[in-house]
Amino acid sequence: MEAYLDNSATTKPSPHAVSEMMRIFNDVYGNPSSLHGLGKTAEEELSKARNTVAATLGAAASEIIFTSGGTESNNLAVLGGARARKRRGNKIVTTAIEHSSVFESVKALESEGFECVFLKPDETGHITEEALKEAIDENTILVSVMYVNNETGVIQPVDRIARIIKKKNAPALFHIDAVQAYGKLPIKVQKLGCDLLTVSAHKIHGPKGCGALYIRKGVHIVPLVYGGEQERKIRPGTEALAQICGFAAAAEEIGDLKKNLEAVKELNTYTLNGLMKIDGVVKNSPDDALPYIINISTNAIKSETMLHELESSDVYISSGSACAKGKPSHVLTALGFDRLRADTALRISFSADSTKEEADRLIEGIKHGVETLVRIK
Amino acid sequence: MEAYLDNSATTKPSPHAVSEMMRIFNDVYGNPSSLHGLGKTAEEELSKARNTVAATLGAAASEIIFTSGGTESNNLAVLGGARARKRRGNKIVTTAIEHSSVFESVKALESEGFECVFLKPDETGHITEEALKEAIDENTILVSVMYVNNETGVIQPVDRIARIIKKKNAPALFHIDAVQAYGKLPIKVQKLGCDLLTVSAHKIHGPKGCGALYIRKGVHIVPLVYGGEQERKIRPGTEALAQICGFAAAAEEIGDLKKNLEAVKELNTYTLNGLMKIDGVVKNSPDDALPYIINISTNAIKSETMLHELESSDVYISSGSACAKGKPSHVLTALGFDRLRADTALRISFSADSTKEEADRLIEGIKHGVETLVRIK
Repeated sequence: MEAYLDNSATTKPSPHAVSEMMRIFNDVYGNPSSLHGLGKTAEEELSKARNTVAATLGAAASEIIFTSGGTESNNLAVLGGARARKRRGNKIVTTAIEHSSVFESVKALESEGFECVFLKPDETGHITEEALKEAIDENTILVSVMYVNNETGVIQPVDRIARIIKKKNAPALFHIDAVQAYGKLPIKVQKLGCDLLTVSAHKIHGPKGCGALYIRKGVHIVPLVYGGEQERKIRPGTEALAQICGFAAAAEEIGDLKKNLEAVKELNTYTLNGLMKIDGVVKNSPDDALPYIINISTNAIKSETMLHELESSDVYISSGSACAKGKPSHVLTALGFDRLRADTALRISFSADSTKEEADRLIEGIKHGVETLVRIK
Repeated sequence: MEAYLDNSATTKPSPHAVSEMMRIFNDVYGNPSSLHGLGKTAEEELSKARNTVAATLGAAASEIIFTSGGTESNNLAVLGGARARKRRGNKIVTTAIEHSSVFESVKALESEGFECVFLKPDETGHITEEALKEAIDENTILVSVMYVNNETGVIQPVDRIARIIKKKNAPALFHIDAVQAYGKLPIKVQKLGCDLLTVSAHKIHGPKGCGALYIRKGVHIVPLVYGGEQERKIRPGTEALAQICGFAAAAEEIGDLKKNLEAVKELNTYTLNGLMKIDGVVKNSPDDALPYIINISTNAIKSETMLHELESSDVYISSGSACAKGKPSHVLTALGFDRLRADTALRISFSADSTKEEADRLIEGIKHGVETLVRIK
């Protein structure tokens, strides 16, 4: 049995999500846009799923657009939001530690002529309120900040950004990439004051290839693709009904966030206690990070070498973002870490189902690796 | 048991496709981009699926990009192709009878300043070679023509377009929307001479929310979304592995195209014979249309009224494109049909599994509807 501690890369689909998808694939195969009864049944399932996902965010169903995943949602928010407001200003404010789907789409806007500010975090990985206040101005049309960093678990002060935007009288849409926070921290879009918010199914035990974008009522964004009438023409294309229903099934199972958070916090402390006893290991996640993610560096063994050592005993973690596929982390680089620390970084990411037994195998594996593997240099 | 004759809207996923997806959801849940063994296993499945889909098109695996479906593939080809060549010319040539995902994306390019030509079909629904020759010139950077029309089944002369582009010395990329041809007509990208070609999984008994774009080796297009390294950065985002493997499973089952085509041709003739005996019914599909699609008009009963009549006896067809959700068909309008004919149109679309028993129930249902329902005016 594997110790899978790479839940920020992707999670195992839950039995409930899988059985819902099976049900749809086998029994509800109509096109939700078809005018006949099979289409109507499909449309009703779609509508139910939309209600379910909306409820997890405190949003109205009409504010939820289903997409092919977090990357598409982030791009739709960033590119679509900026293009919709380009007559009202030219400045985009984001951070240097966003997921590549935000980072690279803002880079694309930069090459289109937008003025793009990539705020650097402080030494703990936080974007400070001061930095946000300084950057956001009357020319700012989009602010995109992630809720929880995917590599370190740092929680950003997203709950304060809406007020800053208002105070600065900025014509900005406010987008939150909440992919790593969803199902782990309470998310109420009203309370956060955001206009756009991204979530993904496969980080909460739903299928890969499915996500959603919350678009606050009245907010206009430019679509990335054009076609039929689906998803209010903001995201046309035949709806991926089974995956959407699998997403909703996983969303239904999110459960008691507070209870889960406490359990994972305990597991986090237990794991860190074990890891910090290993010679040379340092913690890269700050103390107030989301406990679902632990980032450490061994300062001794190249990340990839350690991953392969661990997988030989069926323990699975990552070196950082799966989407970066082994490239040096722009997040750790932005934190000002030296090369050795960045090159030996490891990300452990729990789910609510993770166990101490898995943590023990991880600690044992890293200890063994540090003691036996060839050191850098 | 339903008589489902709306296979151009969507098909029922095959048991093989569904079981493949189950296998992946349950057993291969790693992120294909993860560096560890679970990621590698996932990556191998992805690679196998890519080989399978590529083989059905006579393409190399490296020329296949997986997307969220036909709409995304068409947009990626049209928007991405035009944007990549905008320095070499300003003209886009397409037709007035494309699927909305091509039609509307070309319209979007038109509003960006491109000169866009929407070729009108002749009275049989065909785009003539002469029209193509007249439109394509040295300023043309993109030609997008569908292989088989989704409403009438008309087969367009796509095999001649590459030669016209060459002869006219046009710097054009040639894109074929082959969604309705895939799995029904032989498709060899080399022989067609196209640069880009769209296919969709859910029209061949695979899942909704999954498609592919063939991009000829060496052809550069601009992505619609930005992010990680997936799909050669042309279409980043965690791959929808289960759906992709379900797509490949459906592609494996395409079977003997010629044999299927002959069987469907016989069923087409049988069905038409029955339908044409009904008072007032006219055929909208030309004789040389793909036999999988029959478009007729009753010239008596509003399409939607007839659909509901048929569904009361579990017979399912459509009034046109599902993506148009009941709006007047731009395809039939382009054919110059009068209002009565357009408003009473019905599309019957077979799969290779369709039966005479289903055709009988359809004929009986339409006959009964024409005799008993309230006529237009």
